[in-house]
Amino acid sequence: MEFDSTDSVRNSNPLKYLQTVTFHEPLPLEHGGFLPEVTVAYETYGTLNERKDNAVLLCHALSGDSHVAAHNETDDSGWWEIMVGPGKPIDTDRYFVICPNVLGGCRGTTGPDAIHPQTGKRYGVGFPEITIGDIVETESLLIDYFGINRLLAVIGGSLGGICTLEWSLRFPDRLMSAVCLAAGPHLTSQSLAFDIVARNAIQSDPNFHNGNYYEHGVVPADGLAIARMLGHITYLSRESMMQKFDADRNQGRKIDTKFETKFSVGSYLAYQGEKFVDRFDANSYIAISTAIDTYELGSSPDELRRKLRKTMCRFLILSFSSDWLFPPFLSQEITQALLVQNKPVNYCNIPSDCGHDAFLLPNNFDLYGNMIGAFLRCGEAEVRNQASGVRNRIPETEAPPPDSHILADDARFDVTQIIDLIPDNTSVLDLGCGSGGLLSRLKQRGNTQLVGLEINEVKIRKCLEKGINAVQADINAGLKEFEDDQFDFVVLSKTLQTIRDVEFVLSEMVRVGTRCIVSFPNLGYNKYRQQLSEQGRAPRIEHGKTAAEWYNTDDVRFLTLADFEYFCAEKGIRIHYALPLDTKQRKHISDNPNYNADTVIMVVSGEVMD
Amino acid sequence: MEFDSTDSVRNSNPLKYLQTVTFHEPLPLEHGGFLPEVTVAYETYGTLNERKDNAVLLCHALSGDSHVAAHNETDDSGWWEIMVGPGKPIDTDRYFVICPNVLGGCRGTTGPDAIHPQTGKRYGVGFPEITIGDIVETESLLIDYFGINRLLAVIGGSLGGICTLEWSLRFPDRLMSAVCLAAGPHLTSQSLAFDIVARNAIQSDPNFHNGNYYEHGVVPADGLAIARMLGHITYLSRESMMQKFDADRNQGRKIDTKFETKFSVGSYLAYQGEKFVDRFDANSYIAISTAIDTYELGSSPDELRRKLRKTMCRFLILSFSSDWLFPPFLSQEITQALLVQNKPVNYCNIPSDCGHDAFLLPNNFDLYGNMIGAFLRCGEAEVRNQASGVRNRIPETEAPPPDSHILADDARFDVTQIIDLIPDNTSVLDLGCGSGGLLSRLKQRGNTQLVGLEINEVKIRKCLEKGINAVQADINAGLKEFEDDQFDFVVLSKTLQTIRDVEFVLSEMVRVGTRCIVSFPNLGYNKYRQQLSEQGRAPRIEHGKTAAEWYNTDDVRFLTLADFEYFCAEKGIRIHYALPLDTKQRKHISDNPNYNADTVIMVVSGEVMD
Repeated sequence: MEFDSTDSVRNSNPLKYLQTVTFHEPLPLEHGGFLPEVTVAYETYGTLNERKDNAVLLCHALSGDSHVAAHNETDDSGWWEIMVGPGKPIDTDRYFVICPNVLGGCRGTTGPDAIHPQTGKRYGVGFPEITIGDIVETESLLIDYFGINRLLAVIGGSLGGICTLEWSLRFPDRLMSAVCLAAGPHLTSQSLAFDIVARNAIQSDPNFHNGNYYEHGVVPADGLAIARMLGHITYLSRESMMQKFDADRNQGRKIDTKFETKFSVGSYLAYQGEKFVDRFDANSYIAISTAIDTYELGSSPDELRRKLRKTMCRFLILSFSSDWLFPPFLSQEITQALLVQNKPVNYCNIPSDCGHDAFLLPNNFDLYGNMIGAFLRCGEAEVRNQASGVRNRIPETEAPPPDSHILADDARFDVTQIIDLIPDNTSVLDLGCGSGGLLSRLKQRGNTQLVGLEINEVKIRKCLEKGINAVQADINAGLKEFEDDQFDFVVLSKTLQTIRDVEFVLSEMVRVGTRCIVSFPNLGYNKYRQQLSEQGRAPRIEHGKTAAEWYNTDDVRFLTLADFEYFCAEKGIRIHYALPLDTKQRKHISDNPNYNADTVIMVVSGEVMD
Repeated sequence: MEFDSTDSVRNSNPLKYLQTVTFHEPLPLEHGGFLPEVTVAYETYGTLNERKDNAVLLCHALSGDSHVAAHNETDDSGWWEIMVGPGKPIDTDRYFVICPNVLGGCRGTTGPDAIHPQTGKRYGVGFPEITIGDIVETESLLIDYFGINRLLAVIGGSLGGICTLEWSLRFPDRLMSAVCLAAGPHLTSQSLAFDIVARNAIQSDPNFHNGNYYEHGVVPADGLAIARMLGHITYLSRESMMQKFDADRNQGRKIDTKFETKFSVGSYLAYQGEKFVDRFDANSYIAISTAIDTYELGSSPDELRRKLRKTMCRFLILSFSSDWLFPPFLSQEITQALLVQNKPVNYCNIPSDCGHDAFLLPNNFDLYGNMIGAFLRCGEAEVRNQASGVRNRIPETEAPPPDSHILADDARFDVTQIIDLIPDNTSVLDLGCGSGGLLSRLKQRGNTQLVGLEINEVKIRKCLEKGINAVQADINAGLKEFEDDQFDFVVLSKTLQTIRDVEFVLSEMVRVGTRCIVSFPNLGYNKYRQQLSEQGRAPRIEHGKTAAEWYNTDDVRFLTLADFEYFCAEKGIRIHYALPLDTKQRKHISDNPNYNADTVIMVVSGEVMD
């Protein structure tokens, strides 16, 4: 279990809100064979509405359970208390939340410690090897049981994130949205190696008895505790361990344990390890961790792409910067495989020191919690709009108030000009999309295939709040996640001058877009020329009403309209249309534009010139 | 042992070149108590010269031993074959190399499996807790035994790197040079945690018998193998594990083992773990890993600084970018503590995918191997020069050939002007020192307190080859490793225009230097003005004979002489002297410098103006 809260406050009456349902049909398993019957333990929060279209399925992590949050003030707190409840991002006043214990688990759902209905004995070593697919199939039985056709969302982190991905493949038409946190298409070999050593520790424990320890009245406590210690290290980050343990490094706590307590971190691990033994079953640990370890959504970009092709839902993929169990690049691989197929995906790598556990902690919750909340509300609004026949609108709940960002953008003459250059019904990739101002106007106007790339996570959140699909990316790294001519338009609005490797980024733009729109401030503008030639000062390039100094501007490239034209000629970039502007007077410039325009908009492409 | 080579090719006749010496005096131990006698096993390479000033002590890693390299063509290869031998960086044609097995080890030097001279039984659990200090004291006995007053160098990686650091503190006048690879002032809590889990695995093994397994005729094989598996993961990096295991991830090899072999990485770990049991003693593993874990050179910058104050040797500190057992920031902490005290230190973070093991592998050997070689040769030359009374010279072996870099710099008028501005006997910090051109001229002229900061590792190596102390650093991060007014001069030669956060870097410069010399190209130069005002093109700033384009220049800041003056006035930076230059005509400019100078040199400081 990747969290402390439920470790320290175990449910005093864990069965109070736990419900179970037993499916007496045999459950066929992915690796062959079947389970004669399966019981699913779960808890629910909120109320299923009449149309049964407000249900959210929560998937827990390796050693989690169904108790995701307190059911009322007297109930014990759950493992995602910050996320789930009335008015919280997963709002139980709006949504009907279902959280089942996973197949193979030991918290009520059928697992190795369950009684085999035919033999009357515990499965033990006889429990078949299960997969993430088997877990998800079992969960779908529960959804059937509720009579829910389509889930509003499936949400989970770590193992739960993997289950969410599998849901999107296996039941593409049964979920509207998928929120996948701190997960990936597979484990890295490094993370896999830790699981293997953990299982070796359990299985080497003389009390393991080849998995039949139940019959011997013992448990492989040492092995399971060591496995848990190891797991705990991988859930934290180097930084969070420094914060927790460096100050009193050599002051081990006096706790009653057989394990080493010389150092503070050792005492902590010993405590966590031994406590875990009281509440978890070693065979469950082996069964579930093996299911994670064998999961493979795609070992190559091609395979990943192919597998994700059939998905139909919207995605929100979140990674955490210091997570080394599921490092961010894994989430990025999924995002790229979705992006290249024009699937609606949002991605952000949340900056965090908290390691893999970050998705359970209040740190950075203003980012990831609010992103999840906004993403769900937009999904909910889409369901409502679809029901009422409205499409391609900013979701009603998120409609911007008058005089907000859209009016603010109106002040930017160059942005309105760019919008005018983009026809209806074209697809647009906006590089450096900011808070989604340009894209939300295009969306309001009716364009549907819109993607924004943005490096700043707060701006990503703002895009999500507007219902704009945004992916966190550094455009300096190129656009490798996109195919040639994937978009009708690629827009680089007043961003060119902040990019170091202009040549690379422009070559990527014209590869990915049939037409590219580039706007930039024109260093050749008469005022700038005069500043240098007459005053002997570096030109102070204006951005709207402000102009930074030479030493603190975000701009690192300075070019004139003529420079850009020479550049395009040299690099084989075709200029289709040039729109020189005087943005202060809000007019187009035709007379000596390199001298009279403060800003230039260029429509270019990689088409070979005649 | 952090290497595979000696794992796979064990010495068929390990005692052939192994020598031992037993010191029959009791050895007092840091934590109290003593060992009644101590035997040290070691191997030597090369010949000790008459003056006994060519000896190099090599310190091995946790599970290493004295067999560092083959002694001849028929001998088995050793663990640092690439580094040690005739003509190699640690050149056995020049140096007398001594490599002892550590105290507490199980490869010939006294450790838990040794026979206690009084009881006639193995020490076992009775072996006292030893420290890195005890290991180093034991090594000093061996150096005494050879009659060596002063070692040319002590060199080691990982545990060996820690021992090297301890040598520099404990015997400051007995080593000329210290080469510390992949180490740190202490373990991180994360790395410490892995060691603890490893020891818990050993001690939980029922065959451990509280450390007295020798008497039971068994070994805690499972526990030791699991400890080794865990260690192996920490010696590799995520990237190197992907390279090794991702391709055949699910193809476990069929090997005879009780451990899990379902995955390729698991088979590998099982093989490594079981093999290790054959050649290593569990109590030794516990004793040495505990010595590493309790080592603390300084838990705060202040403590680190205080401890390192007494060191007298030159340092070469190397970290490896993907090393997460001893992450680079630990090496940087040591470097900073030395730099702030004006200790001669060189540092580089070698870019590597190979993790902690990188210091044993041929990848990037052109960098780190050659750095070590150059560093040792300069030390050797200093010894020779000192013997002959010559000081402060480029070491003879490294004297630059005529017409090399120094003449190349002569071509840069601005550089010769900067040198003229720096008086003899002043200390100089050169920011962005490149290959050490400016500093080596100052060194030749007689300046002794010279430090270069440089981001590029190849240039760092070139500095080392010139005998210039160079530290890899990104000056954009500031100069926090230096104290206020630590240097007479801080130089930023034609680098200002490449720095984004000019304000921060200049504030750091004037904090650290009593005087600062800043040179930069002048955007106000008439030619540049004309390019913009008359041709309508962005000025193409010239650097020597070349001028990059607006889209591919390294420059990101563009300023005129006047801009710099206004900046200084606004930020409270005092300009003592301005030296405007026409570098093409190699002359000073006094007439309208903001118009006529292509380059400007400014001498500034943070002194409050009257």
